[in-house]
Amino acid sequence: MTEIFPFAHPDHRYRIAMGVEYRGSEYYGWQIQKSGVPTVQAELTRAISRVANHPVDLIVAGRTDAGVHASNQVIHFDTFSARKEYGWCVGTNTLLPKDISVQWAKIVDNEFHARFSAKERAYRYIVYNAPVPGGILRDGLTWERRPLDVERMQAAADLLLGEHDFSAFRAANCQAQSPVKEVRELTLVQQGRLIVLQARANGFLYHMVRNIMGVLIEIGRGDKPVEWAAEVLATRDRNLGGVTAPAAGLYFIRAQYERNDLPYREPGPAFLDGFPGLADV
Amino acid sequence: MTEIFPFAHPDHRYRIAMGVEYRGSEYYGWQIQKSGVPTVQAELTRAISRVANHPVDLIVAGRTDAGVHASNQVIHFDTFSARKEYGWCVGTNTLLPKDISVQWAKIVDNEFHARFSAKERAYRYIVYNAPVPGGILRDGLTWERRPLDVERMQAAADLLLGEHDFSAFRAANCQAQSPVKEVRELTLVQQGRLIVLQARANGFLYHMVRNIMGVLIEIGRGDKPVEWAAEVLATRDRNLGGVTAPAAGLYFIRAQYERNDLPYREPGPAFLDGFPGLADV
Repeated sequence: MTEIFPFAHPDHRYRIAMGVEYRGSEYYGWQIQKSGVPTVQAELTRAISRVANHPVDLIVAGRTDAGVHASNQVIHFDTFSARKEYGWCVGTNTLLPKDISVQWAKIVDNEFHARFSAKERAYRYIVYNAPVPGGILRDGLTWERRPLDVERMQAAADLLLGEHDFSAFRAANCQAQSPVKEVRELTLVQQGRLIVLQARANGFLYHMVRNIMGVLIEIGRGDKPVEWAAEVLATRDRNLGGVTAPAAGLYFIRAQYERNDLPYREPGPAFLDGFPGLADV
Repeated sequence: MTEIFPFAHPDHRYRIAMGVEYRGSEYYGWQIQKSGVPTVQAELTRAISRVANHPVDLIVAGRTDAGVHASNQVIHFDTFSARKEYGWCVGTNTLLPKDISVQWAKIVDNEFHARFSAKERAYRYIVYNAPVPGGILRDGLTWERRPLDVERMQAAADLLLGEHDFSAFRAANCQAQSPVKEVRELTLVQQGRLIVLQARANGFLYHMVRNIMGVLIEIGRGDKPVEWAAEVLATRDRNLGGVTAPAAGLYFIRAQYERNDLPYREPGPAFLDGFPGLADV
């Protein structure tokens, strides 16, 4: 390892939180894999370890799947190295590929945990609803050819709000302890050719947002009645649910913590900054 | 060449117009190059020639540069093959990479010419104005770190409206016959972290939009006074202008023709469909 930041202090330990944005299209998801395929965690671990001048272990708020993006992912790690927050941010960015970017870094106390301290997580799912696929942002939107009825989708989404056993929307290899989650928001907004779902919950099961969106798309097309969303939920059986909507349209946009001293950033992705009808999260 | 569409009729000639969307990031611009590097024209020529079952020559409304995108490019070509408009569109799309997409095809009369019949062209230029670069849509936005004053930029842009000799905004290797163009719109809109310039003119010189944006960005930063835009224009000397803004933020969004029977499509790019304050073009 090249010693580009040679000032490590083994007598102190610092916990650093970071906000990270990434385009997931070129990665096999968040998590480091033994096979050595490119992952977001692998890239960030490599870059931050160089800045820290020792290997670091990264903890993430929400482990995203292959092809899923994040506008405001939160991570933390422990280090023996004393750096200014600005140095952690800018130093790491100089070592990252251009589709991963550290937005902020903050020295936090040891009570903070990017995963376990998170009280709420939020995602946006973006559908490009048009007869022919586009060429722009092809990996950042999910193309749906048939016209979707957003009012029907919203009525169906409303049936999923609240605390439920979401087993019917849970992928087989989900590692969550409990299938019970409290879904606090499922808002659908349409403008032009884009339809955006904003979803908030205390936590999400593996593939849960994509499985919800798969059901809402079938209802939006008119292939299933609105009530089907509640029926699927009641089965608690993934085999009776709909298809899993593609990864390309999914963005992790926020982790909320009880502490509110982490730097604020717009929910994103930035190209939705002007999008009408989406509340802050 | 595999004869996937074997029904050519050499006794008829048809002229086909197409609307095309592409992400320019992976291409060395529109134009086919002898070196064989990937270009948008090369990909489209290969795909359409297979559908036509004979080699075709493509004429384009606006030849875009390396890294520049198009949401509504217009092309035309002549063919001996009788296909339905739907077949031209869908057949070509099955043979294209996913960052190029035919949106519509229309059989037109021989008077139509994608380049010479165009009476007006329109571009959008998108700046991502934030202290740290993002990771999402990195090749589809131009990052500007320093805060831009959009009111100053608009005041400067207004000085460039109308018919002028735009030599000061013209790249050295521009092939246009005259440097005189009529600029009909230069609107700047800001929402969140995005600043969008919408530009319309009877035509644009080589690099003209990017050179105008380069000047507006310097003025928006406060490095130059508003009047500098008019001063640069008056010099008619490219050497006295500002830097050329990067290709990544530029989108060709419309070519207007006197005929109005070509299929309509939103100006785009689609992720700006909900963006407030941008008029249709």
